[in-house]
Amino acid sequence: MRVVLVGFGVVGQSFARILLSRAADLYTQHGIKPRIVACVDQGGSAISPAGLDLQRLLKAKKKGSVGFYESDARQDPLQVIENVDAEVVIECTPTNLTTGEPGTSHIIAAMRKGRHVITVNKGPLALSFPSLIELANYNGVMFRFSGTVGGGTPILEFAKRCLKGDSIISFQGILNGTTNYILSKMEEGLSYESALQDAKEKGYAEANPALDIDGYDAAAKLVIMANWIMGMKVTMKNVDRTGISAVKASDVKKALQRGNAIKLIASCDSKHLQVRPTEVSKKDPICVNGTLNAVTFSSEHSGHQTIIGRGAGGIETASAVLRDLIEIRDTVFER
Amino acid sequence: MRVVLVGFGVVGQSFARILLSRAADLYTQHGIKPRIVACVDQGGSAISPAGLDLQRLLKAKKKGSVGFYESDARQDPLQVIENVDAEVVIECTPTNLTTGEPGTSHIIAAMRKGRHVITVNKGPLALSFPSLIELANYNGVMFRFSGTVGGGTPILEFAKRCLKGDSIISFQGILNGTTNYILSKMEEGLSYESALQDAKEKGYAEANPALDIDGYDAAAKLVIMANWIMGMKVTMKNVDRTGISAVKASDVKKALQRGNAIKLIASCDSKHLQVRPTEVSKKDPICVNGTLNAVTFSSEHSGHQTIIGRGAGGIETASAVLRDLIEIRDTVFER
Repeated sequence: MRVVLVGFGVVGQSFARILLSRAADLYTQHGIKPRIVACVDQGGSAISPAGLDLQRLLKAKKKGSVGFYESDARQDPLQVIENVDAEVVIECTPTNLTTGEPGTSHIIAAMRKGRHVITVNKGPLALSFPSLIELANYNGVMFRFSGTVGGGTPILEFAKRCLKGDSIISFQGILNGTTNYILSKMEEGLSYESALQDAKEKGYAEANPALDIDGYDAAAKLVIMANWIMGMKVTMKNVDRTGISAVKASDVKKALQRGNAIKLIASCDSKHLQVRPTEVSKKDPICVNGTLNAVTFSSEHSGHQTIIGRGAGGIETASAVLRDLIEIRDTVFER
Repeated sequence: MRVVLVGFGVVGQSFARILLSRAADLYTQHGIKPRIVACVDQGGSAISPAGLDLQRLLKAKKKGSVGFYESDARQDPLQVIENVDAEVVIECTPTNLTTGEPGTSHIIAAMRKGRHVITVNKGPLALSFPSLIELANYNGVMFRFSGTVGGGTPILEFAKRCLKGDSIISFQGILNGTTNYILSKMEEGLSYESALQDAKEKGYAEANPALDIDGYDAAAKLVIMANWIMGMKVTMKNVDRTGISAVKASDVKKALQRGNAIKLIASCDSKHLQVRPTEVSKKDPICVNGTLNAVTFSSEHSGHQTIIGRGAGGIETASAVLRDLIEIRDTVFER
């Protein structure tokens, strides 16, 4: 199975490391032998139809770019997608929730070439999920994005595969670890500002944390879930979104006295999409602390089910990419 | 798809009700049209190769037995399994964790006739999982039992399907709702005896609650999970089991002062199987209250993931049977 890797940041590198450490195991257990035939980042490209040497690729990246691999280093992502023969393109460039680029262009180009596509990039999905799915169907390719929601926690797969024959009526969840960390710290007595500062120091929040704080990241994941799980055709503009910057220490304290906590809850009832600070009972399984994510699905017959896990992390998200790859292998190719 | 239903208690009846209410939907969404061609309980049998009228079947049961359906009412379960042509046998007679009967005999007979088998009966699996799986493989039939663990909460499916390509190193969980309810009540200040009494009054505990209290029910589920998820070949006798009857109100109180709770934790680390009252941090997602069940899986790359839901209930468990049926349909028969 030939794979083109577009973007080679934390997730891409973690994916290469998983392939290195688990090659034998993946072949015996899943009959899968992925070969990275090309990898491209902002600095250049590395191409080898026989499969790149992943150790050497990781070393090249340490020097600044996969371009240092020294094999056809001049092509840009769109050229690589166009020119390199492969079954699957994995798109893991950084997320941009305003333009969706460069991910959207990469995904469209790959689908048009008839490649199955895996992405961990929320931008293209949040902004144009319905049209990307249509394009995938039109070109007869699979499109998977497990790593976009929940990191390594298989939230999308759970809903799609584990509740077959039942219908999900609604769901709600904590989809952003950074804001959950900040709210958890406020519960311990910190002010909003100190909690945000603490999250920055721990590396949980970016220097410019607006994407998390203002609820854009949670809204993007909510859009992906609503489309994929509930069959809605929605984008970011359909989300009624409120961030956590107006949450006061006194609000958190008052909630705590009632046995509750304030959480940034993303919810979908098949009609409305909402991201909003919400008071939740401490006894509700969804009420997790720190950087954890949690989602509760309410289904017609099997009741409420909650799934909890770390919503981020390079190796965790890379494991979601691997799951997608195995699913494509199992669905498309005979074993 | 012709189905024989053996046992027609709460789960069997709930299953019939789901089929009644969702027939159209199941056909359009899953291409599945299950026909109950026979149903048998302790009082008799009802047989119709064209498919039983489920409304009439439920009415007959209200009179005491499906035998009142008045159509070939004399056959016992083994005769029905032997004589009625079908693709799938659903075994939902009551659990017996000492003998495994009558479920084990039903399952063996069905597999020998080349029927795919679905069961919600923990007894046969807890006592002879490895040999039943072998028999299923030998006869080339599928064997599914999602409803035996977690009721409607898809714990087994989650582990098997949602973590593909990763390997589960260990898991631990609260697998028995009755004991969890009692321990939760003790945390609120009740003595062990009053909490048990309360559980009986609410219908959460049987008149003879030993199966729950002494950890047999949790151990049975642990055995099923260890075999199915970890590939171990174990039965009830491999479980190091301690129940909750020795847990004192003072123990619970002391744990609470440390920010912890005492829970009946079933754990498996691929070598040892253990059911034992264990002190757990209140901040651990596994620390759920009331009759909830919770399991945390620890996997190599994607970290810790917790799944929480109600572990019992007729309609919930019946929804697990339906999921199994859809899986058999998707795997064995072309759509």
